[in-house]
Amino acid sequence: MTQHWPTYRLQQMLGINKPLILAPMAGAGGLELALGVSKAGGLASLPCALLEPATIREQVSAFRETSTQPLNLNFFCHQEHPIDESRQQIWLQSLAEHYEKAGLNINAISPTRGRASFNDELCSLIEELKPEVLSFHFGLPSPSLIERIKRTGAIIMSSATSAREALHLESEGCDIIIAQGAEAGGHRGMFIETNPHAQCGTMALVPQIVDAVRVPVVAAGGIADGRGIAAAFALGAAGVQIGSAYLACPESLISDLHRQALSQTEDHSTVLTTVFTGRPARSIENRAINELGATPAAAPAFPHASNAIAPLRAQAEQEGRPDFTPSGQGKRLG
Amino acid sequence: MTQHWPTYRLQQMLGINKPLILAPMAGAGGLELALGVSKAGGLASLPCALLEPATIREQVSAFRETSTQPLNLNFFCHQEHPIDESRQQIWLQSLAEHYEKAGLNINAISPTRGRASFNDELCSLIEELKPEVLSFHFGLPSPSLIERIKRTGAIIMSSATSAREALHLESEGCDIIIAQGAEAGGHRGMFIETNPHAQCGTMALVPQIVDAVRVPVVAAGGIADGRGIAAAFALGAAGVQIGSAYLACPESLISDLHRQALSQTEDHSTVLTTVFTGRPARSIENRAINELGATPAAAPAFPHASNAIAPLRAQAEQEGRPDFTPSGQGKRLG
Repeated sequence: MTQHWPTYRLQQMLGINKPLILAPMAGAGGLELALGVSKAGGLASLPCALLEPATIREQVSAFRETSTQPLNLNFFCHQEHPIDESRQQIWLQSLAEHYEKAGLNINAISPTRGRASFNDELCSLIEELKPEVLSFHFGLPSPSLIERIKRTGAIIMSSATSAREALHLESEGCDIIIAQGAEAGGHRGMFIETNPHAQCGTMALVPQIVDAVRVPVVAAGGIADGRGIAAAFALGAAGVQIGSAYLACPESLISDLHRQALSQTEDHSTVLTTVFTGRPARSIENRAINELGATPAAAPAFPHASNAIAPLRAQAEQEGRPDFTPSGQGKRLG
Repeated sequence: MTQHWPTYRLQQMLGINKPLILAPMAGAGGLELALGVSKAGGLASLPCALLEPATIREQVSAFRETSTQPLNLNFFCHQEHPIDESRQQIWLQSLAEHYEKAGLNINAISPTRGRASFNDELCSLIEELKPEVLSFHFGLPSPSLIERIKRTGAIIMSSATSAREALHLESEGCDIIIAQGAEAGGHRGMFIETNPHAQCGTMALVPQIVDAVRVPVVAAGGIADGRGIAAAFALGAAGVQIGSAYLACPESLISDLHRQALSQTEDHSTVLTTVFTGRPARSIENRAINELGATPAAAPAFPHASNAIAPLRAQAEQEGRPDFTPSGQGKRLG
């Protein structure tokens, strides 16, 4: 067989043909996109962080009916914080003007769905569904949950935004590390690092993580075509994880409004912001970021910021405005 | 002849053997470092932004005595702003406590050296010295100065931090564009972009600039060893510009204190800050950044912030503390 790739380490571990992982994009990438990438030889990922267990079960079942290829289920792994009522009040005050303009009742905010941190119940679901791969964002579950996952035979992946985060993940039993450069769309996976403005770009991060750990490293962030994939291998990565570039596919779940915003995105259009969920995530600059600030002190801890943003977003989207819609980086490449 | 590099476009234009440019690092890289890189086959750069014309003349003369290789002279090209006295007062107020602690007189601050924007006088010097290459940061000089430079036969380079900045440089007659990714040490070259937090990483920036312009593109930012050079070529660059990785060389002019800080630098240690000069630059997080904020509203326009920082820096360095010393990213690679 001709060697097509610089290394087959990732393909062998994951049972895939191409060293490419579909980035799990909660709310944006679903079953159809996963099936498409799987069919093309990459690793299918289902973002499960916003889904109820019953829906996860349905989606895995639907995937298995169509594909015999491996499947990655992705979960958040954040430390859960109760709502801080006094901070919530300051946050609501800073949003009051927007609620008034939108004609919405700020006293009728209901908690948004999902975003549970990976827990005992979800681990039981994993034991039942037996995905070939399990990936986490914001660290890893407790050692006892890791042990239960390992017994299912699943490969464990998680994101690192610095070499010390990568070392921590490796020491806790992570099999593959996603080196998430600052260019990446979506939430920063940071769990030891705390300053979003000190996050390292993909070009500098990948070789530093490759030098730090022994497990395979997957490059993520700013990779949107063959040039980025080749560059990632040159940096020492065993493969790539690609997200934003898939958002333009017909299989992605994003709205027409989001699609339109992405098509107009340029290389200077996005920033890291906490306004949408409380954790730093990359988004196209929009009204919410401009008027509230990218990282306002009042933004409640993850995921509680999203409760109060959700009604504003829904209302604005209905009127055709992406004012409160978080949007990934969406490169103009490819 | 065997082809050693993916393209020889840059080497041919610049008359060098290796597609590598020494990043001009004002205050950190001088004649010895330039001679060293030149001897190894790369393009020697002399940072001239902080030098008086007489010193520039001396350094060029010293370079020519030792080397027959091409030489790049680098200048700043910022729009000059007079000191805004009321803003200066707010800035001094925010520094008052630090002056008091250091036992320094805040009323005895004198303007710091150099940092003139490229002007008629410097252009006359270029006509006299005839460097093979001239590079600029913060845009380009006026069309009439560009025309005078072109008549000397010099190749003109400048930095772009977005595709639209690259397009602007190309349209003004820039021969080679340095795509300066957010990882880069030193000042951001941004001249159309205004938000340091929206600056794009090297991995995403290089292919977007390569797609936008016809002139050769040089990748800069986060490149510190052969892996980064190979990655830059994969992204479509014709060569690389490397800075921080050279700071550890014996030929660099940095202090022992700075050397020590660099050796302890990790991938999460630097941020973009305006505290040292008034323009965003990458620096290791230190006391000044932590206590004043990375981008304080009160920081005067470039280069006036540096006047008031200089005495604090000198005093702290004398006592062995890098509290007010700006330091580049200094990768732990290679």
